[in-house]
Amino acid sequence: MSGRPNPHATPLPEPSTTPEKGWHCTHFFYRFGRQAMSSVLSSECQQQFLAAMQPTGDASPERLASYWISGHDVDFAVMVMDPDPAKVDAIHQALMAPPLGQFIEPAWSFVSISEVSEYVPTIKRYTDRLIAEGTEPDSDELAAKVAAYERRLPMMNEQRLRPEFPDWPAACFYPMNKSRVPGANWFTETFSDRNAMMAEHAQSGMAFAGKVSQLITVGVGLDDWEWMVTLWARNPDYLKDIVYKMRFDVASAKYAEFGPFYVGYKATADEILAHCKVV
Amino acid sequence: MSGRPNPHATPLPEPSTTPEKGWHCTHFFYRFGRQAMSSVLSSECQQQFLAAMQPTGDASPERLASYWISGHDVDFAVMVMDPDPAKVDAIHQALMAPPLGQFIEPAWSFVSISEVSEYVPTIKRYTDRLIAEGTEPDSDELAAKVAAYERRLPMMNEQRLRPEFPDWPAACFYPMNKSRVPGANWFTETFSDRNAMMAEHAQSGMAFAGKVSQLITVGVGLDDWEWMVTLWARNPDYLKDIVYKMRFDVASAKYAEFGPFYVGYKATADEILAHCKVV
Amino acid sequence: MSGRPNPHATPLPEPSTTPEKGWHCTHFFYRFGRQAMSSVLSSECQQQFLAAMQPTGDASPERLASYWISGHDVDFAVMVMDPDPAKVDAIHQALMAPPLGQFIEPAWSFVSISEVSEYVPTIKRYTDRLIAEGTEPDSDELAAKVAAYERRLPMMNEQRLRPEFPDWPAACFYPMNKSRVPGANWFTETFSDRNAMMAEHAQSGMAFAGKVSQLITVGVGLDDWEWMVTLWARNPDYLKDIVYKMRFDVASAKYAEFGPFYVGYKATADEILAHCKVV
Amino acid sequence: MSGRPNPHATPLPEPSTTPEKGWHCTHFFYRFGRQAMSSVLSSECQQQFLAAMQPTGDASPERLASYWISGHDVDFAVMVMDPDPAKVDAIHQALMAPPLGQFIEPAWSFVSISEVSEYVPTIKRYTDRLIAEGTEPDSDELAAKVAAYERRLPMMNEQRLRPEFPDWPAACFYPMNKSRVPGANWFTETFSDRNAMMAEHAQSGMAFAGKVSQLITVGVGLDDWEWMVTLWARNPDYLKDIVYKMRFDVASAKYAEFGPFYVGYKATADEILAHCKVV
Amino acid sequence: MSGRPNPHATPLPEPSTTPEKGWHCTHFFYRFGRQAMSSVLSSECQQQFLAAMQPTGDASPERLASYWISGHDVDFAVMVMDPDPAKVDAIHQALMAPPLGQFIEPAWSFVSISEVSEYVPTIKRYTDRLIAEGTEPDSDELAAKVAAYERRLPMMNEQRLRPEFPDWPAACFYPMNKSRVPGANWFTETFSDRNAMMAEHAQSGMAFAGKVSQLITVGVGLDDWEWMVTLWARNPDYLKDIVYKMRFDVASAKYAEFGPFYVGYKATADEILAHCKVV
Repeated sequence: MSGRPNPHATPLPEPSTTPEKGWHCTHFFYRFGRQAMSSVLSSECQQQFLAAMQPTGDASPERLASYWISGHDVDFAVMVMDPDPAKVDAIHQALMAPPLGQFIEPAWSFVSISEVSEYVPTIKRYTDRLIAEGTEPDSDELAAKVAAYERRLPMMNEQRLRPEFPDWPAACFYPMNKSRVPGANWFTETFSDRNAMMAEHAQSGMAFAGKVSQLITVGVGLDDWEWMVTLWARNPDYLKDIVYKMRFDVASAKYAEFGPFYVGYKATADEILAHCKVV
Repeated sequence: MSGRPNPHATPLPEPSTTPEKGWHCTHFFYRFGRQAMSSVLSSECQQQFLAAMQPTGDASPERLASYWISGHDVDFAVMVMDPDPAKVDAIHQALMAPPLGQFIEPAWSFVSISEVSEYVPTIKRYTDRLIAEGTEPDSDELAAKVAAYERRLPMMNEQRLRPEFPDWPAACFYPMNKSRVPGANWFTETFSDRNAMMAEHAQSGMAFAGKVSQLITVGVGLDDWEWMVTLWARNPDYLKDIVYKMRFDVASAKYAEFGPFYVGYKATADEILAHCKVV
Repeated sequence: MSGRPNPHATPLPEPSTTPEKGWHCTHFFYRFGRQAMSSVLSSECQQQFLAAMQPTGDASPERLASYWISGHDVDFAVMVMDPDPAKVDAIHQALMAPPLGQFIEPAWSFVSISEVSEYVPTIKRYTDRLIAEGTEPDSDELAAKVAAYERRLPMMNEQRLRPEFPDWPAACFYPMNKSRVPGANWFTETFSDRNAMMAEHAQSGMAFAGKVSQLITVGVGLDDWEWMVTLWARNPDYLKDIVYKMRFDVASAKYAEFGPFYVGYKATADEILAHCKVV
Repeated sequence: MSGRPNPHATPLPEPSTTPEKGWHCTHFFYRFGRQAMSSVLSSECQQQFLAAMQPTGDASPERLASYWISGHDVDFAVMVMDPDPAKVDAIHQALMAPPLGQFIEPAWSFVSISEVSEYVPTIKRYTDRLIAEGTEPDSDELAAKVAAYERRLPMMNEQRLRPEFPDWPAACFYPMNKSRVPGANWFTETFSDRNAMMAEHAQSGMAFAGKVSQLITVGVGLDDWEWMVTLWARNPDYLKDIVYKMRFDVASAKYAEFGPFYVGYKATADEILAHCKVV
Repeated sequence: MSGRPNPHATPLPEPSTTPEKGWHCTHFFYRFGRQAMSSVLSSECQQQFLAAMQPTGDASPERLASYWISGHDVDFAVMVMDPDPAKVDAIHQALMAPPLGQFIEPAWSFVSISEVSEYVPTIKRYTDRLIAEGTEPDSDELAAKVAAYERRLPMMNEQRLRPEFPDWPAACFYPMNKSRVPGANWFTETFSDRNAMMAEHAQSGMAFAGKVSQLITVGVGLDDWEWMVTLWARNPDYLKDIVYKMRFDVASAKYAEFGPFYVGYKATADEILAHCKVV
């Protein structure tokens, strides 16, 4: 492929770092650099930490949530979304700037963009599926269901592209790929088969309505895994329950490859400093 | 899946970090940071170590056991269980806090929750299995066996959810997955087949009654492996014997994937400091 | 094979580090060494950074472009091309030299050479393909298309060997292999099959003309992956769109193995220092 | 499995860290921490090194041998065997204790226990094999061979459990697993087939009698690999020769997975210090 | 296998670290430790570098060549061959000794021994192959070709065991295994099939006579890969050309597994210091 524009195509938009539909999203994971800490963080470093984690004014991204993370590898995480990738990355740079950066070790991150997946049913595909599942083609029932979906879809897509983060205490984060090994190659399956598997997978998730809320963002071409999964839960039990249940869906059982899993608990910057005993 | 609650479902519990049934469980593995130690630990650091490993009052979790670990990679381990994930993680943070944290390198950890596995037979499944194995359907023998299991089950489940740790000298720790490679995909097998394989696997373990005690906790959705295995043994010989024997069970031979193995010996905080020659 | 020259062969060129056709190309990825930075970079280090990233005179390579990179692992990248491998590597050495090198951590790099791939159609193969696709063998249409290709080919090959870098804001970088696993072994397929798959793959890319520009350089025998992919985009959205779309081409779906992905944004040395808050 | 003892079983031995038959065995691999060494080791550190590597009195384990190791990753290795795991690990802790520990980097280790493998023929299996190979069932020849084996077996097993280390200059060390991938799963083969493959493998080794001596210790349940192989050789040539030859045995060719290989040369603590130019 | 000598065998040679036929060979790869370098290397360290890389008298190994290496991970490499493994490893130890060792980070190495591969045709196998390829059995042509091979073979084997290094500017280095995965297991193929594949592979290489010279040394039992490949080239272009071409030979396409690739350029110790800007 070359950079030559096709003269017959729609005029191309101006070069920009702002995605056309979704937002940039980065999940950052850190530990405090304990080997460099002969005493608690200086007051200057504490102030830098609070300012970096609670940016104000122009520096404030559209979404930002922070968590302390269980286990030895990571102390805390920040999840940031904004149309401007530089504003998202600036949260990281504000934490790493001197002098605080001496005491912070970045452990992992994932760079992605929010989107509406190709498996989200269009009105037409939704209608077809209802009919296939037994709803009468010209019935009032069908019309009502389709109308309801038509009303719901924009809000659902808004939540996919520019999500509100639920105010629940627990969350887990992990990246995933669809496998391409001989015998389980997602990318050589037909769209129709992939779509059916994703519908079954979505059905599994619906059993957790009110207990777990999910966001899938895309890392293809941006980071080492194809997708990033964020699960927010009313109780950490539901995190293991939903991931275990969904692992038996063929979309997961046969085709999913998972990266690192992190589980954390919602916390303000102050609470993180206190939990980590660095103040 | 979305966060919308189903109005017809049971009312959802309040948001909480306390699991509904099991306890949070973290296994932490550390080495002393020898490159930073020009002399033995200061008296202040020693006191911090003892206090962190032997918390008292409100800071004291429901369960805590410590071990020195064989080999070059890890010096000691702490296994902690409690309904509150922050109390579990606080053990780690108390070790890593300044000034001691300069001399401690976290090497590995595993974050999990205790549970009663779906393969633990219900009364009905236990009865069916006895009949399938030849016990007469309406016999006194069957009734007696079922009654005994009925009495035993609550204690066994209590031991799975809120285990007492045996006072034996040796222990080994390792995480595992069930494989999903083409040709050996646990998650595409039927429940009935998985259940039969797990029953055979449990049978193998029973030969070690009195020699080895086992705890399986769940990492699905919480950490990088699906399960964490803790084996306590009367003698380190039994650790290799049981793991070797069980590796031939089809549930292991064909479907198990193993992570790092650590073997250790029960030790108080004082004994760990002495064994590691840092005092 | 031995070093003995075949007396009947064309005389061998003089030993040289300059490739016969392409240029040397290295992609360098760095993070600032925050643990060593108790304050912002000294004025001397800033000057060294600017000088290293903007070499002049004899030290100036044929091509050099710099980017800040999203995520925790890498802060910035430099992509350099020149006929002289020492001039390419000198950019790296100028950054790592004392005193600046104390504050720079090399995170990844890829060493490659530009080339015209064996799958770029020759005039003859282009003609044959047009005929196979239905153009009349002796038609004016065929002659016109072939003549156009004949005019275009030298420029296209020049862009492959000595590319101009587009002035677009976003770019992504990743290495890849063609797989050799049993059941998906690219290197045991016939040239004709490989050629057809590469033609389909090129077709996918053409849908992004004007949105994405691509450069493939060869790492075979030079670095750990067989090819290095550079994608420049008018908008970061197109990076995920093109990589996602192409993943369904059989050349990718079945045969491609991917290494790390880095996404970045065009930036001068000054802009990198500012974005990373080290000045 | 639970910890409940079976009342009908043999009474269980007292809890202990001493294996019932074999010895604990740890192979430790180290490099000197050159980045911390602005000059050669202080006299105090040299003394600590010599004392740690040549323990006396109660601290002296049953077996200890030291080697300098070829290549960049490891400078020296110590192999230790004793019934008490704390005495084995104490060698490591004595090297890592302050102040010497600042200048020592542990690179790798393997924790195992010596045993008599289940594939060592019993008298009965040895007899059956001789008959299967053509020796007459009731012949004097059979009786003589069996009697010889009966005399030899206790010494051979003693060498497996509590080996004398040969006084040869070269040695190599590596861990291994038996594979469990679909199509090459050792653990789903019958004992009879595994036994035949191990017999063939042993036969390969016998061609190196007098040239190479081998010790296999068990890591199952104790460390990340199932077995640890120690080969001592009269000449380093034989190390490559025997490993190459045995790789064609089906037990290796099809089923073996290998970890890191280290080759080293017998050396006293003094010789290690001199070879590594740290004194 | 045990250490018991077979009384009927040829008397065993004395224990020795000198291989019977080949030489020890280690490839060492290093980077300068930039984080520790606040200024250029002291004059003392520079002298140590030059002395270590240009040993004289008894310390001088039979072969030593040095290269600067492209990319971020390695700055320079040294390849050393000698009958005495301690003399080979002493080059490494001389670089790492204080005070220079503070500023040198070993990045990779490979430990091997030179040999004449079992696939090098004996006179008989060479004769048989010529006949199989159509040369008349009792012809003068056959006799002449065989006589020429007979004259050439000792020199060729000398070059395999104790090679002269060509004076060309470019070189690449990489280790490899022959795969043992189900479906592509080199070690379960017959000698005859392996021999035919290796002959085809050698044929591919012959096309590069005068452009590339190759040395294969054996790491089986000595290091983590089975073979080490050294390619010296008249031009770096030929390195990618030969490795790409040979990748389609079935011996590579189906059976080869490759480790890291390093490409470098011949340089004296002085030139390395200058290229790396540490003086």
